[in-house]
Amino acid sequence: ARRRRLLLSELFQPLNLQGEGSEAGWEAGSRSHRLMVQGGLIHPGSTGCYCYLPPAVRAMDKLVRLIDEAMEAVGGQKVNMPCLSSAELWRASGRWENMGPELFRLADRHGKEYCLGPTHEEAVTELVAAQSGLSYKQLPLRLYQVTRKFRDEPKPRFGLLRSREFYMKDMYTFDTSEAAARHTYELLCGAYRRLFERLGLPCVQVRAATGSIGGTTSHEFQLPADIGEDRLVLCPHGHFAANVEMVSGEQAACPTCGEKLTQTRGIEVGHTFYLGTKYSAVYNAVYYSPDNKPHLAEMGCYGLGVTRILAASIEVLSTEDSIRWPSLIAPYQVCFIPPKKGSKEEQGAALLEGIYDDLVEAHPHLAGDAVLDDRTQMTIGKRLKDAKKLGYPYVVIAGKRACEDPPVFEVWDQNSGEVLYLTKEGVIELLSKVQVP
Amino acid sequence: ARRRRLLLSELFQPLNLQGEGSEAGWEAGSRSHRLMVQGGLIHPGSTGCYCYLPPAVRAMDKLVRLIDEAMEAVGGQKVNMPCLSSAELWRASGRWENMGPELFRLADRHGKEYCLGPTHEEAVTELVAAQSGLSYKQLPLRLYQVTRKFRDEPKPRFGLLRSREFYMKDMYTFDTSEAAARHTYELLCGAYRRLFERLGLPCVQVRAATGSIGGTTSHEFQLPADIGEDRLVLCPHGHFAANVEMVSGEQAACPTCGEKLTQTRGIEVGHTFYLGTKYSAVYNAVYYSPDNKPHLAEMGCYGLGVTRILAASIEVLSTEDSIRWPSLIAPYQVCFIPPKKGSKEEQGAALLEGIYDDLVEAHPHLAGDAVLDDRTQMTIGKRLKDAKKLGYPYVVIAGKRACEDPPVFEVWDQNSGEVLYLTKEGVIELLSKVQVP
Repeated sequence: ARRRRLLLSELFQPLNLQGEGSEAGWEAGSRSHRLMVQGGLIHPGSTGCYCYLPPAVRAMDKLVRLIDEAMEAVGGQKVNMPCLSSAELWRASGRWENMGPELFRLADRHGKEYCLGPTHEEAVTELVAAQSGLSYKQLPLRLYQVTRKFRDEPKPRFGLLRSREFYMKDMYTFDTSEAAARHTYELLCGAYRRLFERLGLPCVQVRAATGSIGGTTSHEFQLPADIGEDRLVLCPHGHFAANVEMVSGEQAACPTCGEKLTQTRGIEVGHTFYLGTKYSAVYNAVYYSPDNKPHLAEMGCYGLGVTRILAASIEVLSTEDSIRWPSLIAPYQVCFIPPKKGSKEEQGAALLEGIYDDLVEAHPHLAGDAVLDDRTQMTIGKRLKDAKKLGYPYVVIAGKRACEDPPVFEVWDQNSGEVLYLTKEGVIELLSKVQVP
Repeated sequence: ARRRRLLLSELFQPLNLQGEGSEAGWEAGSRSHRLMVQGGLIHPGSTGCYCYLPPAVRAMDKLVRLIDEAMEAVGGQKVNMPCLSSAELWRASGRWENMGPELFRLADRHGKEYCLGPTHEEAVTELVAAQSGLSYKQLPLRLYQVTRKFRDEPKPRFGLLRSREFYMKDMYTFDTSEAAARHTYELLCGAYRRLFERLGLPCVQVRAATGSIGGTTSHEFQLPADIGEDRLVLCPHGHFAANVEMVSGEQAACPTCGEKLTQTRGIEVGHTFYLGTKYSAVYNAVYYSPDNKPHLAEMGCYGLGVTRILAASIEVLSTEDSIRWPSLIAPYQVCFIPPKKGSKEEQGAALLEGIYDDLVEAHPHLAGDAVLDDRTQMTIGKRLKDAKKLGYPYVVIAGKRACEDPPVFEVWDQNSGEVLYLTKEGVIELLSKVQVP
């Protein structure tokens, strides 16, 4: 039995590709916000809260798999901590007071107070502290989760770039010494750089302040973009990169090569902190050394804004009216466009469906990634226009040349801008190389 | 390069297999609760909130993949709705008042009120209502999510069986007519029955009350267990099954065959509701019929308690001191136990590692599922005892017979109770058939 085809007409991806933001009653402050709403990726709920629609869920699932791979490669073990975190736990670290109105707070039916975790240093340190007799042999310990986080932003805006609910990957590491913790820190920074490289995103690692999280060393991973809320100073030769908050007003030249520093804006997509014993001292998270003495664990924490990476990717890769994705995380890899119903090329429809079926038969990992645009009451041109706006990495069209012998299909490689004319075998050969995480 | 081996000593799975619940300062009210804490699957946070540790996250990820498959097979499309749901939205359905203290409520920095969604009828109906011009051709629409839900239980207990934060799969369906919606209802009940069958769980589908969710038809999917909070009445021949709340006091015989009804207790792991237009009428969720007239969509909702299924599986499959999993969702499929260091069988260690490496080389899908119990300061017997308690479906031991020519290994199939003696090739052949979702 052939696999069920994914028909565009049946997908829940409410398109508003001609629409204006303001007509729909909302104001998009950024390109990605507008494109994600128009392209049926997100739907606004309460202020700063979004429903992720099926294509966005697919993109996020792929991104999470890439992140899982990256975290497993550095010995990460996945946990999942509660959202509700007690006031008591947060008072111990001082963050119950320090976080101020950014913390969502609530009381349960017994009047006990909680916050909705924006990050989980408190919870994870308590978890590790509860392991009595943790041995130095069990370190480094690298625990991470990918969960929904909450932050009562003063100005939620730009869709998923600054929302009040968001998904974050947060890793917390426990080492035996500062040297070991700094090794972990370098390892994680390397993992982040490789992840962004794999996604094809031009990420810059800059020195940053530690803020309310604390610690002594911190870097941000920034995607340069005009809409970015952070200002960065960079050495044009790559010797120096910092958030502007880290340089004094008079510093205009690179400390290494003396070149004039340039300024740019960035979207923060990752953040690393060397924490030292700030949290382990509070909750008494200790390990036992070979001589069986307890020592405070040296900690680090490492965040990646999962939903923010989705939006930031679209922000930096797209054109004004056309979404572009990092190929690996595009919701659907390929869109098939058959001829218009009643047109003289109509015989190409069955041939195109044959390619679709044979492709997913031979390469089952593409089954969920191939969409058939069955809106055949529309011309090929109109549907291609939509496909360009939605940014499928590949679009395969059965146009006039599908009536040739042998039939030839038009293939748009949207990320390179190339158009190829290929036989059925050529199309399948090309698409067989598409990676799906 | 060979893949990194998963060493038991490095896994974050704090075992307390000899421990008593009360010593650790908590009281386990159920077998699954005790076994999950002792086996390092969960760690208690605030009342009714748990940290899921790495093996539990692995089991849950597998279960979610099985659920995704089941939902995709019935045309489900995955979304992800916000946790924060506005009081305004919930007042419209009446549930802001009706849910009473079970709803976690909070206010943001501007004093606007929200609840943390326990289910999402309101949000999803508003989402669909926002699609102007939804055509009958786009129905049935079957949207689902697998997300964390919140319920301020009066008596959270039994670990993941009744917690205040939990993961639930909730599907919401939209059809053009009552007949179509009832067809969807039957389809989903069938999908649930097949899922539980696939898991090897003895689930019973019983008639149930609709409660605060509403609607006119409802069934629960119950796992019979003494600890269960629901009382069920069943016809011994399978003609009739209902929650006791659905039968009048005097009903003692099966309405079909007249046989005396028996009583049992059950753990509710799934719940289906035919909702009619209860919610679509409130939010005006309409579709357009062929004559272009708007009609209210006929709805259904379908829940599965994801984290509850994990605990309930352990509750019904385990013995007093040994965890047993549905094979498909066991966190790790196989544990390798090499000989004790310094024993005369020590040469078997390298052979066993060879099996491990060749297995995951030939069957990469097992790479994350094979654990090497490297605690070689312990006897094989002690480690086998732990392995029995943790319930790996397979345990492979290099004992005395690993020194024979050819070497023979001891393989415990823990779900059948069988012990096999196999050569290296035999072990790999057997394990190659293990399914990992």
